[in-house]
Amino acid sequence: MPAEPAPYAYEGLDRVLHEKARLGILTSLVAHPDGLAFADLKRLCGLTDGNLSRHLAVLDEADLVAVTKRFEKKRPLTTIRLTPAGRRRFLAYLGELERVLRDAAAAARAADTEDAAPQHPGARPAPA
Amino acid sequence: MPAEPAPYAYEGLDRVLHEKARLGILTSLVAHPDGLAFADLKRLCGLTDGNLSRHLAVLDEADLVAVTKRFEKKRPLTTIRLTPAGRRRFLAYLGELERVLRDAAAAARAADTEDAAPQHPGARPAPA
Repeated sequence: MPAEPAPYAYEGLDRVLHEKARLGILTSLVAHPDGLAFADLKRLCGLTDGNLSRHLAVLDEADLVAVTKRFEKKRPLTTIRLTPAGRRRFLAYLGELERVLRDAAAAARAADTEDAAPQHPGARPAPA
Repeated sequence: MPAEPAPYAYEGLDRVLHEKARLGILTSLVAHPDGLAFADLKRLCGLTDGNLSRHLAVLDEADLVAVTKRFEKKRPLTTIRLTPAGRRRFLAYLGELERVLRDAAAAARAADTEDAAPQHPGARPAPA
């Protein structure tokens, strides 16, 4: 077993970013540095108005996104952008997520090899 | 924008598996097909007794892990194993996680390229 005290604690998986719906929101926004309209973001993430609002409030509170409202032809238009800090933290989070994937894939492969190995040192593989 | 209605909904990110502590538990277990003792799992994931018990109850309820108790030299020994369904679902979850990473990395790269591109169609890049 690894010497590291808790190799699978994944402290870097920040709960604010790790939540499934917020992961979709952040992925949508990282692709659109100029921001996305509320309606477009809602569609991309398959969320309801209420759910998107709730998750944006969490992300806004953590300074990960900036929400601006203006009027266009007398209709309110809400635009959501990733903040520079939000982009930085999301990229760091993705690095940690990559580590999870690498660990898990390596672990699954190692277990497979173990399964395939003969049970006893002297055992021969069964004929094909 | 993609034609797919909600490309960033990530329906495959099953909440039972996506939770940060449970992700660590499952990664630990996928590496140990014969199971892990409660104390070892606790250490690998950096969890308290109470937290590990609570998360194992959720995973057991979903038939992702099997918890067995036996006595060894009169002391109770709890062993936790991934069930075959648990292994299957965890590997499927990892596939979806890989999709998130691919999407996000591609999105971040595309945004970078956009930033680096000239602002006006006729503009020439600044001399190096």
